[in-house]
Amino acid sequence: MIEEIEVRTRKRCELIDITGSVRKVVAGSGVSDGVCHIFVPHTTAAVTINEKADPNVALDIEATLEKLVPPDRGYLHMEGNSDAHVKSSLVGVSTLVPVQGGNLVLGTWQAVFFCEFDGPRNRRCLVWVSE
Amino acid sequence: MIEEIEVRTRKRCELIDITGSVRKVVAGSGVSDGVCHIFVPHTTAAVTINEKADPNVALDIEATLEKLVPPDRGYLHMEGNSDAHVKSSLVGVSTLVPVQGGNLVLGTWQAVFFCEFDGPRNRRCLVWVSE
Amino acid sequence: MIEEIEVRTRKRCELIDITGSVRKVVAGSGVSDGVCHIFVPHTTAAVTINEKADPNVALDIEATLEKLVPPDRGYLHMEGNSDAHVKSSLVGVSTLVPVQGGNLVLGTWQAVFFCEFDGPRNRRCLVWVSE
Repeated sequence: MIEEIEVRTRKRCELIDITGSVRKVVAGSGVSDGVCHIFVPHTTAAVTINEKADPNVALDIEATLEKLVPPDRGYLHMEGNSDAHVKSSLVGVSTLVPVQGGNLVLGTWQAVFFCEFDGPRNRRCLVWVSE
Repeated sequence: MIEEIEVRTRKRCELIDITGSVRKVVAGSGVSDGVCHIFVPHTTAAVTINEKADPNVALDIEATLEKLVPPDRGYLHMEGNSDAHVKSSLVGVSTLVPVQGGNLVLGTWQAVFFCEFDGPRNRRCLVWVSE
Repeated sequence: MIEEIEVRTRKRCELIDITGSVRKVVAGSGVSDGVCHIFVPHTTAAVTINEKADPNVALDIEATLEKLVPPDRGYLHMEGNSDAHVKSSLVGVSTLVPVQGGNLVLGTWQAVFFCEFDGPRNRRCLVWVSE
């Protein structure tokens, strides 16, 4: 069963920690051992796993992506968000995390982040667990 | 059961929409709810999910990847396609998409693209559905 | 059942072929047809699939990532490894590979690489197979 996480983003480019919501889906799934799948149904957003202990890590990721793929590079797509599409393909819209004993198995420093590249918007993230 | 999608690429760097072929594999799998896995068995190609409504988005992704990782950067690998290997690792050779009610669950603007980085070639893409 | 692969890295930025260890997990799983999942529980490392026939490909990937995301870019995070966090999100900490007839299905030139971006360290990689 696919669960939907709603994410309200506040900036154009922003990483938002959604680990708590993902853990709730895992707990509610009743699956003890398996895979937690995460899928972002947008083309100017993504999902990644990285450090949350120091919030500067997320800020550095946002700033580095902006430097690598700047918004104003002379793109063909006329909506002014081509850079967001490129960032989405670089980071990716899907990921998977192990589930063991009914819990999400993340490393000590890992958290799951929704990546907004063309906000602010109301976004969705699909999460489901397979045995 | 793993199904093989054949892709004929026409340019060196090119994103090709394979959503229709992926949907056929999902329909033929008989799986109602689960995960569609997509895997590219090549080292100079990849798979991504992005917008197809405006074909310029794919062109902007191709052009931006070419700028970020140009073909002529003084690489060690002597076959002249090191940039294609790097692009493959940046975009990734695998992805997953939810399946619900026997259908691929993609966002409104999403399509699945085979990414050619060292074409033109005859390529393959492996697709299978798990419950 | 999740198996743990231990990886001892020797340099700051380094791709290490772990295909043999992944194949052992697949063989030991008893699963004939399914999905091999690979997950790196670190925030300054990643996993990718690329060519191993010519070791220069891995060196070119390492060097290109260093050029794209240099270590000394003026980051906010004070531990001196923000570039490694960014590389981790660009390459990704998870991947999946098809399993058929009890074997990992990789393309002719493909190998699975653990990507170290902030070594040398003792690292772990989680591998498990689902039907």
